[in-house]
Amino acid sequence: MLSSRIGILGGGQLGLMLLQAAVDWNLNISILDPDPDAPCSRIAAHFEVGSLQDYDTVYRFGQALDVITIEIEKVNVEALEALEREGKRVYPQPAVIRLIQDKRVQKQFYRENNLPTADFVLTENKADVQKHPALLPAFHKLGKDGYDGRGVQRIASEADFDKAFDAPGVLEKAVPFAKEIGVIVARGTSGEVRTFPTVEMVFHPEHNLVEYLYAPAAIDAAVEDKAQQLARQTAEALGIVGLLAVELFVTDAGEVLINEVAPRPHNSGHHTIRANATSQFEQHWRAILGLPLGSTHAYGPAAMVNLLGEEGYAGPAYYEGMESLLAAAEVFPFLYGKAQTRPFRKMGHVTVMDQELPALKEKTTWVKETIRVISK
Amino acid sequence: MLSSRIGILGGGQLGLMLLQAAVDWNLNISILDPDPDAPCSRIAAHFEVGSLQDYDTVYRFGQALDVITIEIEKVNVEALEALEREGKRVYPQPAVIRLIQDKRVQKQFYRENNLPTADFVLTENKADVQKHPALLPAFHKLGKDGYDGRGVQRIASEADFDKAFDAPGVLEKAVPFAKEIGVIVARGTSGEVRTFPTVEMVFHPEHNLVEYLYAPAAIDAAVEDKAQQLARQTAEALGIVGLLAVELFVTDAGEVLINEVAPRPHNSGHHTIRANATSQFEQHWRAILGLPLGSTHAYGPAAMVNLLGEEGYAGPAYYEGMESLLAAAEVFPFLYGKAQTRPFRKMGHVTVMDQELPALKEKTTWVKETIRVISK
Repeated sequence: MLSSRIGILGGGQLGLMLLQAAVDWNLNISILDPDPDAPCSRIAAHFEVGSLQDYDTVYRFGQALDVITIEIEKVNVEALEALEREGKRVYPQPAVIRLIQDKRVQKQFYRENNLPTADFVLTENKADVQKHPALLPAFHKLGKDGYDGRGVQRIASEADFDKAFDAPGVLEKAVPFAKEIGVIVARGTSGEVRTFPTVEMVFHPEHNLVEYLYAPAAIDAAVEDKAQQLARQTAEALGIVGLLAVELFVTDAGEVLINEVAPRPHNSGHHTIRANATSQFEQHWRAILGLPLGSTHAYGPAAMVNLLGEEGYAGPAYYEGMESLLAAAEVFPFLYGKAQTRPFRKMGHVTVMDQELPALKEKTTWVKETIRVISK
Repeated sequence: MLSSRIGILGGGQLGLMLLQAAVDWNLNISILDPDPDAPCSRIAAHFEVGSLQDYDTVYRFGQALDVITIEIEKVNVEALEALEREGKRVYPQPAVIRLIQDKRVQKQFYRENNLPTADFVLTENKADVQKHPALLPAFHKLGKDGYDGRGVQRIASEADFDKAFDAPGVLEKAVPFAKEIGVIVARGTSGEVRTFPTVEMVFHPEHNLVEYLYAPAAIDAAVEDKAQQLARQTAEALGIVGLLAVELFVTDAGEVLINEVAPRPHNSGHHTIRANATSQFEQHWRAILGLPLGSTHAYGPAAMVNLLGEEGYAGPAYYEGMESLLAAAEVFPFLYGKAQTRPFRKMGHVTVMDQELPALKEKTTWVKETIRVISK
């Protein structure tokens, strides 16, 4: 299995960290990405420039390979289905990608499988949205092509109806939640399932991006059990092979609801590179290569701070405060090597560890205050 | 400092692990190696084929760079000296490489700096060796070009005199030692020094290669202090910038003697990738790039087993038992991606971790029994 010819659709930071993990086993990996300067371009043994959404490009790329995976969902699923029919191992399976690509289908899936999720209705257009004042306050999400906070709007009251997307979407009741948590689960080709410890995410107040997270989440055992169990159930219901990142809400009443999932390594698992016996990236390789899944044992509490491009700066990236970070014990910056910064662009992340929780929180706050991605 | 153009002389497994660590900071690295299929060739952003011992090749390679380092000592030092004179940052410094390249000069250096080491005489040729029966039993080491057990011979009694190398060397009294231990120390451009916890090495009985090691070493506090202090003193006496791997003997009487040193990442520090907050590879980057040194905190006890090519096999490498290893918790194989195996060739290593020492030892023995690098 280690000698398979492997391809990744997408060459961004997730691909980069997959490549870094793959060094240990000398995996033979080809990358497809439309951007010749994508993060993976520097260290990929094989790097091909091409569209992830073009049938012919994806199909031709996959033809030369044994195993095909993704680091982004927005790919040509028809080409992956054709490759799968021809006997290629495509993980996650195209059917899973197709289901998750469309938030409407995803939400229906939860309902059909009795997986708890916020109440919702499917809407076809703007006029449709306006028929459901009873769901307000709500979030209106585009069925397709939403990503990193794009394609999501808050409809607080009927006065906001006018700004609703005029396209197929899902109107989802806003859940008054106490915490947003996440569980990354891996499911192997044999059906073996393992989860990483539950993390707690803090989102940027305006931009729907994880600003920082703590692992493990500060939740009681019942919530932890429920979250772990839901992640496992979701992976099993999907039958996914590979990683599934499950984002969940914990309501004030202690209820746990699935928010959304991603069928790949995820921003909420970057700390596992430093903090866990097996990183999410190594676990993804194990899952899709038919290998036994690795221990997810955590060596201690950890936090992760996303390095987002500072508001008001665009241009060649400069990491102000980087040297201060590097002088602190168990503070691990990871830069994605994107030449240009722009507001809220994901430019890197910082993992923070400390055996003592109060010191960890203090250090994490300090990291957030110390580093800025700007342009000079 | 992170944007420096960096070059490594040598593209073997040590270079590979340096490259892997460099992914985090998006370092811009060029590799020079005579072998177009060297381990680094697959993931290096810039890979140049050329001799490490040819003045012009090394000089020209270094001209395009800001910082030059090594992963092997057998390089053209004159070219590095010329580059240093022109203002390039060459770390470790050429003078240090020159000193360490010659075991005769290295031993003299210990003596001059009151660094304890086994008694010795310098010898010019075979006839010279025979003048020192009082030192027997002894090891006779070639001054230059010994490596991984080559260039070292045991002279047990006068009967062995006849096999002595007929070239400049050092005849070193064999020390009856209880343990071989090692300390990796880093010294930064500012003079800051940090050591990794002391490890205990078990060598292959015939071939002078580390077969496995345990971290930390099972030694008493006085020996640990002495070993750490000697490593630090040696780095400071050399004035090295970068990593120094110090191999030491602990005699039956509890004395600690320096055996030899290597001015670079070392086989005895591979476990730090998994077991320590900062790996030896990241620490090398920190040291030579003028960054603060990282925490060497260990997350738990660890062991490392070298994967050496099995005796009796030469040809395309096959890793028998690999899948069994991958099924065990906290067992981390690392393959160097060398296409061909041959007896005792270093093909990879396995880091083993466990919070419980007895379980760690048991697992390590099992690893040694389970994996073999053969050819089919």
